[in-house]
Amino acid sequence: MARPFDELTKALGKTVLVRLKGDRLLRGTLASFDVHLNIILENAEELSNSEEQAIKEKYPKIMVRGDNIIFIAI
Amino acid sequence: MARPFDELTKALGKTVLVRLKGDRLLRGTLASFDVHLNIILENAEELSNSEEQAIKEKYPKIMVRGDNIIFIAI
Amino acid sequence: MARPFDELTKALGKTVLVRLKGDRLLRGTLASFDVHLNIILENAEELSNSEEQAIKEKYPKIMVRGDNIIFIAI
Amino acid sequence: MARPFDELTKALGKTVLVRLKGDRLLRGTLASFDVHLNIILENAEELSNSEEQAIKEKYPKIMVRGDNIIFIAI
Amino acid sequence: MARPFDELTKALGKTVLVRLKGDRLLRGTLASFDVHLNIILENAEELSNSEEQAIKEKYPKIMVRGDNIIFIAI
Amino acid sequence: MARPFDELTKALGKTVLVRLKGDRLLRGTLASFDVHLNIILENAEELSNSEEQAIKEKYPKIMVRGDNIIFIAI
Amino acid sequence: MARPFDELTKALGKTVLVRLKGDRLLRGTLASFDVHLNIILENAEELSNSEEQAIKEKYPKIMVRGDNIIFIAI
Repeated sequence: MARPFDELTKALGKTVLVRLKGDRLLRGTLASFDVHLNIILENAEELSNSEEQAIKEKYPKIMVRGDNIIFIAI
Repeated sequence: MARPFDELTKALGKTVLVRLKGDRLLRGTLASFDVHLNIILENAEELSNSEEQAIKEKYPKIMVRGDNIIFIAI
Repeated sequence: MARPFDELTKALGKTVLVRLKGDRLLRGTLASFDVHLNIILENAEELSNSEEQAIKEKYPKIMVRGDNIIFIAI
Repeated sequence: MARPFDELTKALGKTVLVRLKGDRLLRGTLASFDVHLNIILENAEELSNSEEQAIKEKYPKIMVRGDNIIFIAI
Repeated sequence: MARPFDELTKALGKTVLVRLKGDRLLRGTLASFDVHLNIILENAEELSNSEEQAIKEKYPKIMVRGDNIIFIAI
Repeated sequence: MARPFDELTKALGKTVLVRLKGDRLLRGTLASFDVHLNIILENAEELSNSEEQAIKEKYPKIMVRGDNIIFIAI
Repeated sequence: MARPFDELTKALGKTVLVRLKGDRLLRGTLASFDVHLNIILENAEELSNSEEQAIKEKYPKIMVRGDNIIFIAI
């Protein structure tokens, strides 16, 4: 059985959607991650929670602390 | 006595319902998991909390961080 | 002195009531558990919090992540 | 100096009052505990938070997960 | 440099004020503590949060789980 | 690179402002700290959250449990 | 693959935006960090959450406890 982190490895360089605790939603290119699920997103966008998911903020590069993550859509 | 994770192993490849903290509900095929209960769901659907459990979002593949999980209906 | 987990061992195969954080209440047959207090319940029912404890959902088998548990009535 | 857990050892077999996070209050006979402060209460009663502390529920035996405990009045 | 726990050692046998998460306030004699900051208070009083800090409850001896503590006024 | 705790060492004996979770604000002399960021403040004042930061309480010496701290202004 | 902390190393000496739990927003020069993501910000500003991100407070140097951090825009 492949492990969950193996799937993240396959997703490196691809656009992912990251759902955070506290109703935050990010989209960006998965550039790296570590065992705590800390991740680097490049060309990241913070999206509104409405159905349209409008772009609220843009960040060239952000590090997200892993414990905030609910799920990553790969 | 079989341990709880043994039951998850048996559920690999099957459809499971995952109840998350913060009133989120996911359904999908359990593709993998690790000791932190991080899981990969394939063909995942996020369901509304109403009695009808309507499909709100679809994700081909998501990694859910284990600490968000309340229970997994196998 | 017997330890708390010894009491859980004695409760295997019996019906238990599990009170979860976030006002959830489950009843089912305790099939297994591990050191994190992850548990498997069989023939599980989610009960309403009202005095009548009506059955809201039924699950043939669920794994509950231990950190959600407030107490288990054995 | 005696350590806090030494006091719990002395309280074994005695009635204790257990204040939980989320405004829950339990009273029962302390039957056992472990290093995580998981405890077994026998002849346990869940009490209301009002000044009268009326009995809401009775449980012959419950295991309380330690991380829910605010304090134990010995 | 003396470490924070050295100050607690000096406070043994003295009256301390313990501020807990969830707006609880305790006063009592610090009888013991451990590395998790679990503490035993003797002749403990739970105080109201109003400016007068009226006594709400009295407990001859309580064990407070360390993770609930915000600060201890020594 | 100096590490964050090196900066705390330099701040020993100086007045610091400590922002806590739950909208609490403390000011006092940093007397000691440990690896968990437990700290001792001397001549501590609890300040109101209003713009004026009025003094609400005074404590000759308090131990703050590290996990409550958001930041320390050195 | 570079790891997330490698990106932080590259950001040393640069201005970063730090989003904290509890709707706090900080901006400052990243002076140091450790494995817990505790960070030192110099010439730090606390910003309002409104669209204008007005400066609410200024701190010459602050240590932020890592567990409060949601993300760092590098």
